[in-house]
Amino acid sequence: MERVLIKNLRNEVGNEVVIAGNVKVLRNQSKIAFLEIEDRSGRVQGVVFAKPEVKSICDNLKEESAVEIGGIVKEREDSQKNDKVENGDLELEITSITILNASESLPFELDGDINLDTNLDNRPLTLKRRREKAIFRVQSTILSAFRNFLLENDFVEFQAPKLVGGDAEGGAEVFNVDYFKEGKASLATSPQLYKQIMVGVFERVFAVGQTFRAEKSATTRHLSEISMLDLEMGFIEDHSDVIALVNGLVRHISTTVADSCASELKTLNIGAPLTPEQIPIMTLREVQEIIKTQLGNDKTGEPDLDPEDERFICQYAKENLASDWIFVTHYPVSKRPFYTAVDPNNKELTLSFDLLFRGLEMCSGGMRIHKKDELVGKLQAKGLDPRKFAFYLQAFEYGIPPHGGIGMGLERLTMKFCGLENIREASLFPRDMNRIDTLLSKEKQNEADSNE
Amino acid sequence: MERVLIKNLRNEVGNEVVIAGNVKVLRNQSKIAFLEIEDRSGRVQGVVFAKPEVKSICDNLKEESAVEIGGIVKEREDSQKNDKVENGDLELEITSITILNASESLPFELDGDINLDTNLDNRPLTLKRRREKAIFRVQSTILSAFRNFLLENDFVEFQAPKLVGGDAEGGAEVFNVDYFKEGKASLATSPQLYKQIMVGVFERVFAVGQTFRAEKSATTRHLSEISMLDLEMGFIEDHSDVIALVNGLVRHISTTVADSCASELKTLNIGAPLTPEQIPIMTLREVQEIIKTQLGNDKTGEPDLDPEDERFICQYAKENLASDWIFVTHYPVSKRPFYTAVDPNNKELTLSFDLLFRGLEMCSGGMRIHKKDELVGKLQAKGLDPRKFAFYLQAFEYGIPPHGGIGMGLERLTMKFCGLENIREASLFPRDMNRIDTLLSKEKQNEADSNE
Repeated sequence: MERVLIKNLRNEVGNEVVIAGNVKVLRNQSKIAFLEIEDRSGRVQGVVFAKPEVKSICDNLKEESAVEIGGIVKEREDSQKNDKVENGDLELEITSITILNASESLPFELDGDINLDTNLDNRPLTLKRRREKAIFRVQSTILSAFRNFLLENDFVEFQAPKLVGGDAEGGAEVFNVDYFKEGKASLATSPQLYKQIMVGVFERVFAVGQTFRAEKSATTRHLSEISMLDLEMGFIEDHSDVIALVNGLVRHISTTVADSCASELKTLNIGAPLTPEQIPIMTLREVQEIIKTQLGNDKTGEPDLDPEDERFICQYAKENLASDWIFVTHYPVSKRPFYTAVDPNNKELTLSFDLLFRGLEMCSGGMRIHKKDELVGKLQAKGLDPRKFAFYLQAFEYGIPPHGGIGMGLERLTMKFCGLENIREASLFPRDMNRIDTLLSKEKQNEADSNE
Repeated sequence: MERVLIKNLRNEVGNEVVIAGNVKVLRNQSKIAFLEIEDRSGRVQGVVFAKPEVKSICDNLKEESAVEIGGIVKEREDSQKNDKVENGDLELEITSITILNASESLPFELDGDINLDTNLDNRPLTLKRRREKAIFRVQSTILSAFRNFLLENDFVEFQAPKLVGGDAEGGAEVFNVDYFKEGKASLATSPQLYKQIMVGVFERVFAVGQTFRAEKSATTRHLSEISMLDLEMGFIEDHSDVIALVNGLVRHISTTVADSCASELKTLNIGAPLTPEQIPIMTLREVQEIIKTQLGNDKTGEPDLDPEDERFICQYAKENLASDWIFVTHYPVSKRPFYTAVDPNNKELTLSFDLLFRGLEMCSGGMRIHKKDELVGKLQAKGLDPRKFAFYLQAFEYGIPPHGGIGMGLERLTMKFCGLENIREASLFPRDMNRIDTLLSKEKQNEADSNE
């Protein structure tokens, strides 16, 4: 008999069916057993009663086992209906159970409270928790909403390379790779240079993919490997064209998450973000003036916001402007990469912006320099050797249009959409200076054991 | 005045408009100039006549320059209409030209014949060729068709990590990365182990992303960094469930490319692939018997097909079965990775398959082992240490369902859809043992120069 998905059981009331899934809950009593079975489409309760040969299977069954179950779909009696749970009006009267793959006893209560290291050391198990499934369904939804919005707006997706010829941008900590006999390559910290080249080709492009930073800090906001959502667009006037597009983009992502992930947000106990039609836009100086006025703290000379400033201005925007998001513009030249366009009205500032969301920087962007001579000058001013950028600079010899774009971290977005405390919870398999899958020291220990 | 996209000029006949794009063709005569302008949406011809101040701009203009152009949209007279070219019934009577970014003289005729090294050394320019734009639009279309089909079929996308803890699978050449003080990490050669873990979570998953192999060969089919399209699905009976899904998937990709990329395929001078409703399926032995019968070449004892066999059987399938694709199944245990399920009817064979397309292997797949004990035995039989796989093996302790899947190379698919001779043409920025952007030896030369 062909397998029926649990979401379709509603159409099978009175029929005999076969379902397949994992046993998420098992309450095995002396004469009766209740099971909750989950497949990719949903969850349903089954009951085993007056079937000794089936009941005896339940006596040895463990939660999380993969099973195929035969039974008859029943509508519950009114007194038994529960509209608080999925399929709370249905029940499967189980007539057969085949164990496809038995689970061992769980080392801890799956949906209970566990600490972060336990969670991450046991990822193949803990990703099966309600909470983690909700987080990564939200992440998958953010990703497809990002893509769909951009494809609708004439953007072409491309694959940005991860192996690059050296630490081109300078500054950021990079990972080195042994590359054949020729020596060293690096892992890309950003697809920026390739994105700009691609603007010359398709005018509007985006890329999704990992970037790598050898961050020696162990904060709640940093990882060694993150997934970046990058876009770049040509024929713009200035950074405000990019802001307008990003406003539409994050509106679309917010609406899609709110619509498609209502039950996931409920599991995570968080509301959909406040995303007004026009997200507030302030210059860095305006933000600093508000901080000065509201907190009496004069930071108007600072070149950047620090984390507490970001939290404050987000709280301010939420309370006064009904927005969980805020664009902050016009950061000084010293704080932005060499390719950032300078503000024609104030040579010390750039046509750049950050987008903050629920207290954290999500995205950096701006208008870029499109004249080759200016770019070469900026490289030199930052102490970089233009000859190392020869490949990239070619794009600027052949009519690259005025352009700009952003890079946005998928894990940070996920973290703030889901209300997580630590970015490690927003990565399926987080990497940091102490961890690749399991804690590195533990892995070393295992290796030492196996060498004995 | 707001910019109008070239594809929308049809709605503006008689109106004054502003367009922006790159000058792709410039024919500058003594009293008149013809320009072809291209933006992200299309191409149109413009003409400058009896406007000396605009004509003088054309006298210094170079092809590929980024321009903003004002003009009046005209329908051409019948005798001037050309239905062989895009917008061949329209013409822009140009009234103003603003150069947004001037191009230098092109070092070679852009759309002419160039050799592969010239093409790759000048990628920021050569990607602007008609041919390259067509190739990477096809690639982008393959990618979105792959995703859309899987999302429609309940698959969840996830981000597989690229930094991994060691050469877990053994065998393939891996790149090593300096990873903080703890020592070495590697670049993933495949998302396989993470895909299987994720089947335990979401039942059906897919991942798109780069994988890395330190291939010391310089063939036309291998790169150091490729984009893999991976999927894995649970609750299957055997490998034939995976074949059925992949059959639907490549049908969808073929149809989408044929529909959305008709003009690109024309530019590339290649037809859409023959993709029958049921792609032929043969066992490795059956293929070898055909080779023996047809060519008198007895390879029935061989454990695999070599490249000439793959080309032959594809030609055979095309001529006799009206298919550019063929599934070849049941490869021997010795030729498949440790996680491949063994054929219950013949312990020397596996429930595995390759999908060949137009003479080349596109994809490898099969049913996987889902019982932990069997997996541990297979690891040991291949000389691998199960303790190094402890993280992965956890998934098999907690009821992972019977499952299978495939990995498919995006560049190989692109190569065969587009009829390319060398896989480097199917990668925007190909990496191999001699090249990262520019030829490595050349890069070293540049560096040496700059150290003088």
